[in-house]
Amino acid sequence: MIKSQSKICVRYAETDKMGIAHHSHYFEWFEVARTELLRKIGIPYSKVEELGVSMPLLEAGCKFFKPSFYDNELTVEAKIDEMPKATILINYSIFHEENLLTTGFTKHAFVNSQLKPLRLPSFLKEIFETYFPKREG
Amino acid sequence: MIKSQSKICVRYAETDKMGIAHHSHYFEWFEVARTELLRKIGIPYSKVEELGVSMPLLEAGCKFFKPSFYDNELTVEAKIDEMPKATILINYSIFHEENLLTTGFTKHAFVNSQLKPLRLPSFLKEIFETYFPKREG
Amino acid sequence: MIKSQSKICVRYAETDKMGIAHHSHYFEWFEVARTELLRKIGIPYSKVEELGVSMPLLEAGCKFFKPSFYDNELTVEAKIDEMPKATILINYSIFHEENLLTTGFTKHAFVNSQLKPLRLPSFLKEIFETYFPKREG
Amino acid sequence: MIKSQSKICVRYAETDKMGIAHHSHYFEWFEVARTELLRKIGIPYSKVEELGVSMPLLEAGCKFFKPSFYDNELTVEAKIDEMPKATILINYSIFHEENLLTTGFTKHAFVNSQLKPLRLPSFLKEIFETYFPKREG
Repeated sequence: MIKSQSKICVRYAETDKMGIAHHSHYFEWFEVARTELLRKIGIPYSKVEELGVSMPLLEAGCKFFKPSFYDNELTVEAKIDEMPKATILINYSIFHEENLLTTGFTKHAFVNSQLKPLRLPSFLKEIFETYFPKREG
Repeated sequence: MIKSQSKICVRYAETDKMGIAHHSHYFEWFEVARTELLRKIGIPYSKVEELGVSMPLLEAGCKFFKPSFYDNELTVEAKIDEMPKATILINYSIFHEENLLTTGFTKHAFVNSQLKPLRLPSFLKEIFETYFPKREG
Repeated sequence: MIKSQSKICVRYAETDKMGIAHHSHYFEWFEVARTELLRKIGIPYSKVEELGVSMPLLEAGCKFFKPSFYDNELTVEAKIDEMPKATILINYSIFHEENLLTTGFTKHAFVNSQLKPLRLPSFLKEIFETYFPKREG
Repeated sequence: MIKSQSKICVRYAETDKMGIAHHSHYFEWFEVARTELLRKIGIPYSKVEELGVSMPLLEAGCKFFKPSFYDNELTVEAKIDEMPKATILINYSIFHEENLLTTGFTKHAFVNSQLKPLRLPSFLKEIFETYFPKREG
């Protein structure tokens, strides 16, 4: 398992007229957490892209249990539970103080700079394998 | 079934450095389509809120089959397939020309202005029942 | 003078907890109007970029006289008053019904795909000159 | 003078297809800095709003000298140079490492929860006067 935690402070611009953070921003916060997760394992996403690989979304989902409010300091946890193959699945949980507000996931493909699908690039595979060692036969 | 179609033109500000529309905006486009769906059945969401009811998200999901690009004119279809009860489920499909780019859904609660859960408000129930008539016993 | 008008409907996601459209979105609306202005004179901005030219912002300003609200249908007027040289200045006015809500401007440079400054590209110069003919000596 | 510094890390969602942070987000970053400035002087903006006062924008401006890029860590400096009266003027500078990228300002009114203009509220006036003492006659 690979796991990281990021801090987000809800911006005024992220609130809506209901007085809560608008749901679209949760997907940006997941992305912030993803950025920190990849940095933590030694392969910042900016570096991934310099190496010619992008990771566009295939699928995303989110469940909202409680709202968040302007200036709330949130903890966004990102986790990879399984060795990525042709795709990578990341799970998220967002907390405010002790409360779980949201869970979600994103599933990504690997593509080159022309947006053509790639297999898991070897520079990523090697890193992920240190976290998810192959079981011997 | 209740159904509407909305036009969205991808804004430059909605693109990201991958050169495609960033996924977080698809949830805003779903919302635009939701706004038009409710207007179409005679109960604009601004009116719903004036009557003291908001419809925060409980859950959302999206599958991305193909990307969209700056200045693409998209069609966002919103559909309610079932009579709403304590919650309302809306399904979305986004097309560019003939191509299906994305499908998604949002599930909403009904709350009052203090964000307390409500049952389906009667002014909404009456409208929805004209589209989903009760079957006689 | 070159002038265009665009329609914008304020999205729920664009509101903030004050109940009005957040000011950052006005700059996105200006951009929508800019897109339509360039399309109107026959050189869509997507085409400008295909030809290797981008127009990043050098400066922007905005005055807010009255707020706008969710679901307001706004008219965004964009205008070029002078022949662009090394930079291009665009002025904007946003109206809701008869009311002027906002005025603003953006000033842009011309750069190549490596973000290096360019002089006014000839394919743009030719178009602009049809609107701003040179005075004979 | 009142002054604060905030850190911002450019989000992927904040980039555009030019590969740089989209200008509309600079106004959100100014707002983050404003939030921290007010917190620093002991009157968080969330508290200001709880006391029934909002500070909508009257005017904003920004000059962009150099672009910022995904994952850049930026310093956003906010400054109040003069005692606020009917309006408050805040100046901003954004730096990446040693480089000044952007300067800007925002000018705000004080309004009540019905968006009606107010004079500088006394709870704010008292705080500001500790930073901008009245000169004796």
